[in-house]
Amino acid sequence: MPHADSSLIPPTISTKSEFYEFVAPQLRALLEGQRNWITNLSNAASLLYHSYESFSSHFGSEDRAVNWSGFYLHSSMFPLQPEEAKKSEGVLLLGPFSGKPACQLIRAQLGKGVCADAYVSRKTVIVQDVNSYPGHIACDGGTQSEIVLPIIVNDQAIGVLDLDCLAIAGFNEEDQKGLEEIVNIIINSCDWDI
Amino acid sequence: MPHADSSLIPPTISTKSEFYEFVAPQLRALLEGQRNWITNLSNAASLLYHSYESFSSHFGSEDRAVNWSGFYLHSSMFPLQPEEAKKSEGVLLLGPFSGKPACQLIRAQLGKGVCADAYVSRKTVIVQDVNSYPGHIACDGGTQSEIVLPIIVNDQAIGVLDLDCLAIAGFNEEDQKGLEEIVNIIINSCDWDI
Repeated sequence: MPHADSSLIPPTISTKSEFYEFVAPQLRALLEGQRNWITNLSNAASLLYHSYESFSSHFGSEDRAVNWSGFYLHSSMFPLQPEEAKKSEGVLLLGPFSGKPACQLIRAQLGKGVCADAYVSRKTVIVQDVNSYPGHIACDGGTQSEIVLPIIVNDQAIGVLDLDCLAIAGFNEEDQKGLEEIVNIIINSCDWDI
Repeated sequence: MPHADSSLIPPTISTKSEFYEFVAPQLRALLEGQRNWITNLSNAASLLYHSYESFSSHFGSEDRAVNWSGFYLHSSMFPLQPEEAKKSEGVLLLGPFSGKPACQLIRAQLGKGVCADAYVSRKTVIVQDVNSYPGHIACDGGTQSEIVLPIIVNDQAIGVLDLDCLAIAGFNEEDQKGLEEIVNIIINSCDWDI
């Protein structure tokens, strides 16, 4: 099967729970045989984005409801960072993603937006309406709701998986459950330099 | 301006030459202030993909003619590669991209596909019809044509920029000229560990 076809959702899938049960093994297969996180996060962001595109009616009324899927990671993960950035507690840098261009950098402090809050609190954050969220950073003015999951390796928060939706209240607890399994697959598929 | 809006092509743009003259300064602005290649290649792939999406009628008759935009890089660029991979002349790994999931790895030898040929020959390769190209790797069966540009830093080939199109003969010498400038902007925007 060409890799691109892994993001096709069959018409028999009719609930969010079934959606994530279908996507999880597709992701495992897509990442198999490769351990570097740049390649794997790139393919994971793409698989999620295009899988949601094939299942958009469950994420709002728009034609393509989930409009951004990707990763912010602590700057210490990135090559050639100044020593200061490696020591710093406070900066998440944009990693691989699918969707329109995005903000390069997020200060990882509580109150600096949804990604920052999920990273610092180490808890998944679901936001029904980003316009009323304190500290929200609008990389794309079209985004209405968001879910952000922390990525924790060896008890260390290394970044987040961030998903945006064009509809209000695009994500709920079913997404949280499904995406926590997706994050686990991603964590276990890669070697992490920590 | 939200970052996402940088990929909107105004209706006054009517030729490929004008398109690239518009996209180049958008790219410079988008990458400004950040020197790591993971963040910058992620944003560059997205800007190109969504800019083409806003200008699709010049790249075939399909609604979204350019269907993949991204990077393959030599494995020595990636963190935590085995020492063998660092020494090897021969492997390109998938880097940041926009589009559907893609092949993880390309053998960088002549005859192993368009990316491999552009990398080894250090020359831009334009393919009118990938189905008749020797050694073509079909990550996405929908792709009909392709352009691949080598990325050369300090006289060393470190990877390629790869663009796929759903139409036959999507790319020509105007694209080559415009994209060679795009590659120059990308090279100069990043610190490279070579």
